[in-house]
Amino acid sequence: MSWFEEALYVRTCGYRQGFLVEREVARLKTEFQEMAIFESPFFGRVLALDGIVQTTERDEFVYHEMMAHVPLLAHGGARDVLIIGGGDGGVLREVLRHPVERATLVEIDGGVVDFCRRHMPGLSAGAFDDPRTELLIVDGIRYVAETTRRFDLIIIDSTDPVGPGEGLFTDAFYADCKTHLNPGGLIVTQSGVPFFQPDELRTTVRRLRPLFADVACYLIAVPTYVGGLMALGWGSDDPALRGVGEEVLAERQRAAGIATRYYAPAVHRAAFRLPPFVAELLA
Amino acid sequence: MSWFEEALYVRTCGYRQGFLVEREVARLKTEFQEMAIFESPFFGRVLALDGIVQTTERDEFVYHEMMAHVPLLAHGGARDVLIIGGGDGGVLREVLRHPVERATLVEIDGGVVDFCRRHMPGLSAGAFDDPRTELLIVDGIRYVAETTRRFDLIIIDSTDPVGPGEGLFTDAFYADCKTHLNPGGLIVTQSGVPFFQPDELRTTVRRLRPLFADVACYLIAVPTYVGGLMALGWGSDDPALRGVGEEVLAERQRAAGIATRYYAPAVHRAAFRLPPFVAELLA
Repeated sequence: MSWFEEALYVRTCGYRQGFLVEREVARLKTEFQEMAIFESPFFGRVLALDGIVQTTERDEFVYHEMMAHVPLLAHGGARDVLIIGGGDGGVLREVLRHPVERATLVEIDGGVVDFCRRHMPGLSAGAFDDPRTELLIVDGIRYVAETTRRFDLIIIDSTDPVGPGEGLFTDAFYADCKTHLNPGGLIVTQSGVPFFQPDELRTTVRRLRPLFADVACYLIAVPTYVGGLMALGWGSDDPALRGVGEEVLAERQRAAGIATRYYAPAVHRAAFRLPPFVAELLA
Repeated sequence: MSWFEEALYVRTCGYRQGFLVEREVARLKTEFQEMAIFESPFFGRVLALDGIVQTTERDEFVYHEMMAHVPLLAHGGARDVLIIGGGDGGVLREVLRHPVERATLVEIDGGVVDFCRRHMPGLSAGAFDDPRTELLIVDGIRYVAETTRRFDLIIIDSTDPVGPGEGLFTDAFYADCKTHLNPGGLIVTQSGVPFFQPDELRTTVRRLRPLFADVACYLIAVPTYVGGLMALGWGSDDPALRGVGEEVLAERQRAAGIATRYYAPAVHRAAFRLPPFVAELLA
């Protein structure tokens, strides 16, 4: 057996996480990135893009549940959801557990979708075959600049702001997203691990603030997004969405019949309470 | 430069974290364990005992603040505090920021105290010279079996249940701790990372439950206690301690003049809200 060493923080922080590799399952280079899936003893299959861990079978529930259920249960009536990125299908799978009418997934790299459906089918768990799913293999930046549709929720499930994900962290992109939200809609975005990447959250919040009346972030602890807490950015013109109470969230979760392993109404509320070292990035 | 690879989860989970080592600062073998401190680019000095990371200058504030301020601000009037383990002095430092009368630190390995005072002095930051500090280099198990003193708070700041820390996870030890609590007192204990070590929390809670009316845990995210969330066990006969509200906590923190980087009254309350995959370990 060999070790897979993630390079993400080696240069900036002299830190790395390593996974024992039982066997490499598949590897493929697309126009955009190099994809690899390997099998590790405890984590099951692990997906890496350009050498950076995107998700593992063992802990994918944390990120995917919290990316989908927090905004959807806060909103309470979303019909049209747009996911930008997220070609592995994990967020899509969780979104479709809600009574939405349509979930549009816009992924720049069709290779990721095929690769994950084939080698980590549990991630999408059939979500790409759901009649409510619309899969578009196009650049998300271009899509939000050109589409005439509007959405109740936009989830930006991007890689870090290097490589193909870079344009998903710009003012222009966020402004275009805003234009395509229905009244009462909201945007949620992957904003990095503040301990290692404070600028990712700082910059995102600074860019969302001129666009939305209520800008915030919530925190989740994903074991393999190493560094403690990951921040998910939040933008909405309706501050009441962030204030929805536990009882209401619980009733909505019950009504949709969604069983979860990380998400809970109390965890949802708690996730918005920020340690000072994170809160100061939003100042 | 070389890499320090932590062995903790290699055998059980095929996982490891690695720190780039700029230079080794000191290494010493005591009767109990092998201690090493090295300098790493982002983390500053890192303390390892028997090859397991105990703390780093960069993120030690998370664990030390949350181990001390959550129970002390919940209690509100602790005068006598017992710390078992914690020879690095980080918890002691935070405890002494409260108006306690005495803080007794019982550490089995005097070598750790000397080693950390010399090579990571910021951890204790003078706490061992505070006239309120009583430092005892004895076995904590024996100490709680034999002492006639009583405490308002007992903090068990142990290593994992292998090596010298093993006896700090037994029924007999917890029962002895209970005997030495004043009315209204409480116990807090390092209970591992549930994602990697679910049995540590499960067992601790099972052992505390027959002893205390209110048994729970709270969660913190320490970057270098890798695996997402770490659990801290909580035992008390007074359920009201866990129910103290944000306003009261904030008033107590203000009164004591304690500035914090991870702790906040809202974070304190939120830390007790458990994701289902953790909550089920307490069932």
